Amino acid sequence: QGTRDHPPAHVALRDRLLAAVVACFKRHGAAAIDTPVLELRETLTGKYGEEAKLIYELQDQGGELLALRYDLTVPFARYLAMNKIANMKRYHVAKVYRRDNPATTRGRYREFYQCDFDIAGQFDPMIPDAECLKIVHEILSDLQLGDFLIKVNHRRILNGVFAVCGIPESKFVTVCSTVDKLDKLPWEEVRSEMVGEKGLSPEAADHIGEYVQLRGGLDLIERLLQDPKLSQNKLAKEGLGDMKLLFEYLTLFGIAGKISFDLSLARGLDYYTGVIFEAVLLQQENDHVEEPVSVGSVAGGGRYDGLVGMFDPKGRKVPCVGVSIGIERIFSILEQRMKASGEKVRTTETQVLVATPQKHFLAVRLKLISELWDAGIKAEMLYKKDPKLLKQLQYCEDTGIPLAAIVGEQELADGVVKLRDVATREEVRM
Amino acid sequence: QGTRDHPPAHVALRDRLLAAVVACFKRHGAAAIDTPVLELRETLTGKYGEEAKLIYELQDQGGELLALRYDLTVPFARYLAMNKIANMKRYHVAKVYRRDNPATTRGRYREFYQCDFDIAGQFDPMIPDAECLKIVHEILSDLQLGDFLIKVNHRRILNGVFAVCGIPESKFVTVCSTVDKLDKLPWEEVRSEMVGEKGLSPEAADHIGEYVQLRGGLDLIERLLQDPKLSQNKLAKEGLGDMKLLFEYLTLFGIAGKISFDLSLARGLDYYTGVIFEAVLLQQENDHVEEPVSVGSVAGGGRYDGLVGMFDPKGRKVPCVGVSIGIERIFSILEQRMKASGEKVRTTETQVLVATPQKHFLAVRLKLISELWDAGIKAEMLYKKDPKLLKQLQYCEDTGIPLAAIVGEQELADGVVKLRDVATREEVRM
Repeated sequence: QGTRDHPPAHVALRDRLLAAVVACFKRHGAAAIDTPVLELRETLTGKYGEEAKLIYELQDQGGELLALRYDLTVPFARYLAMNKIANMKRYHVAKVYRRDNPATTRGRYREFYQCDFDIAGQFDPMIPDAECLKIVHEILSDLQLGDFLIKVNHRRILNGVFAVCGIPESKFVTVCSTVDKLDKLPWEEVRSEMVGEKGLSPEAADHIGEYVQLRGGLDLIERLLQDPKLSQNKLAKEGLGDMKLLFEYLTLFGIAGKISFDLSLARGLDYYTGVIFEAVLLQQENDHVEEPVSVGSVAGGGRYDGLVGMFDPKGRKVPCVGVSIGIERIFSILEQRMKASGEKVRTTETQVLVATPQKHFLAVRLKLISELWDAGIKAEMLYKKDPKLLKQLQYCEDTGIPLAAIVGEQELADGVVKLRDVATREEVRM
Repeated sequence: QGTRDHPPAHVALRDRLLAAVVACFKRHGAAAIDTPVLELRETLTGKYGEEAKLIYELQDQGGELLALRYDLTVPFARYLAMNKIANMKRYHVAKVYRRDNPATTRGRYREFYQCDFDIAGQFDPMIPDAECLKIVHEILSDLQLGDFLIKVNHRRILNGVFAVCGIPESKFVTVCSTVDKLDKLPWEEVRSEMVGEKGLSPEAADHIGEYVQLRGGLDLIERLLQDPKLSQNKLAKEGLGDMKLLFEYLTLFGIAGKISFDLSLARGLDYYTGVIFEAVLLQQENDHVEEPVSVGSVAGGGRYDGLVGMFDPKGRKVPCVGVSIGIERIFSILEQRMKASGEKVRTTETQVLVATPQKHFLAVRLKLISELWDAGIKAEMLYKKDPKLLKQLQYCEDTGIPLAAIVGEQELADGVVKLRDVATREEVRM
């Protein structure tokens, strides 16, 4: 339940997407690592907050207590700590597992790919963070998904907001997860959760509401830096300083136009400590898709400076920032688009079918196809001793093979093959 | 335990191997499928004989009873049956899981890659079987692993041998698994297991011994076709007929010289019904490796005509033949060779480092690197505001980046960059 087989047309499209993503990661100088799908349960414990109940656990079979990985970030942090690595730019494309209620119509499954790029190490502020946003911009542009927006925020700015609104520090994380619902719920509902479930005073909630509904660019950053309360708060000042520097770098990258400083962005996971971001596709008016899928975010990430330290015996920290591309959601969108347009993906790459119009030519075909394979040419033949020519040409049309190399008595006598363009029916002897 | 993290140098080498294998599979017109790493336990039950105890089972968490896949063949058979597919040429490269005693020094792990190519469908005899052997030959040649041999046998020939030696049909499978040990144990020990554990008469065991120690080529097939006893046995005759046809096709493919008809080859798995094969590397005298690793077989496979029917409600059969490339063992060999030769794999593909000899050039570097990325060039820069030029060039040498694009005051004024070849120190302005 919640998993699926992927037929060739899926895999062909998915491989094309993954290739584009990986090409971008390599363009930015990342190396690949791979970690086991199995982790010790204790490695995953205490990293995912309430989501921990979705972890797939293996049966205790008299060995170690194991679980399936839940994401690629925690295994990466464990890897860095175990190997005492202080600097690394890595990517990892692999499947992760969540015992979630599958919403398969919205492209959510219990087994799905994650494509992560992360930069670990102590560097000058905001340079790696800006590169992560550049990567999101490059990939979403490359894949021609239509218009998009990358929302950014900063955990310290949020914490500063909470502080100046009089929220005790012990409630920052839980209030943060309520703010995170603002992309799906109207402010009124978020406010009533704050007051009811989270026990804030109505005044504090309203005060938070004034801030978290703000969005903008450099202008908003400047305004908040002048805000009489925020400018007095250390956390907020640091966060806003980071954000200003980030926008400077994003302007140099030429991508600031697609970035929105959005104070409602909070992101669920506990481990973020700095810049956080999330990319969303914008609704397209003249979209040819009949029923637009609601896909949510297609990429997200942020800075997590404390996670590696949780795996180090001495608590030695390695600052990290990373991005995860939501390849499954992007896949759902592209798949639906192709369905709507009637476009088909070829599932094989065969260049030529070795065919014959005559009986008793199996040996000749086997010799010819063997030569083609040895020359690196992608070739097929029908697995029949004496197939009909029509069947052979039909197979080319069905599977998209562009050429047929035909050999019969005449060709054999002349020492040639007849190469036929399946679409145009043009033939040349060679 | 028995799993491992793969650092960048591993992944880079492994990706190169996998690319060669997949290129071959595509050259032969295969399409890719993907199946979940989780299967229902019942799907795996009764397919692996005694090996079933090595299956990783998931905890019963109030849903379905699940296990991690043990190989890619059973999921493929389930896929064909579930989707009522009667014809398919597919490849699948993915990890499988076995709760085995890990022998990590011999390259055996509990999590490892399998690379499978299979042809499903009712076709004229031995054409797909011959192609599977051609694929093994192409891949082992491509990877330049040194000399190799592909042993082939046929389940029906083995069964025919057992029949003419007076073994009851009910003991065929168990005697077969004893014969399978002949590649590791001397005949005397295999014989004593037959007589002791398996309860054969000494005469029957000796009789079997006369056959299963035979190996050869077309000559041996012809001789056995004349064998007074075997020629009277229907199973043996069918198997030998197949084998003769197979050798004919392998000769047309030009690979018969690397094939050995070996009656000791039995292969453990129950589901094989026809041709079976296994590729082994031959010991090399002038091998530069100090301590040669014993790696066992590097590829294997065979025909399994009954497996799909086990998943079909009506028992409808789909004949299949396939091959699995032992990529992990090949990896171990190549890794050891590279260690011995001191050769290093680059773990990134970065073409150019954007560098500067001056302070306050971060903005210039960010603009330049952004242009390079947008032009599809693989580029990196140090994540420091004002790095020293020496450090930047050192980074190129450490990570194998061949070029540095240097921009300082003079270059900025002239509107050029200085492109430096890191190895030769040659520079051009452009």
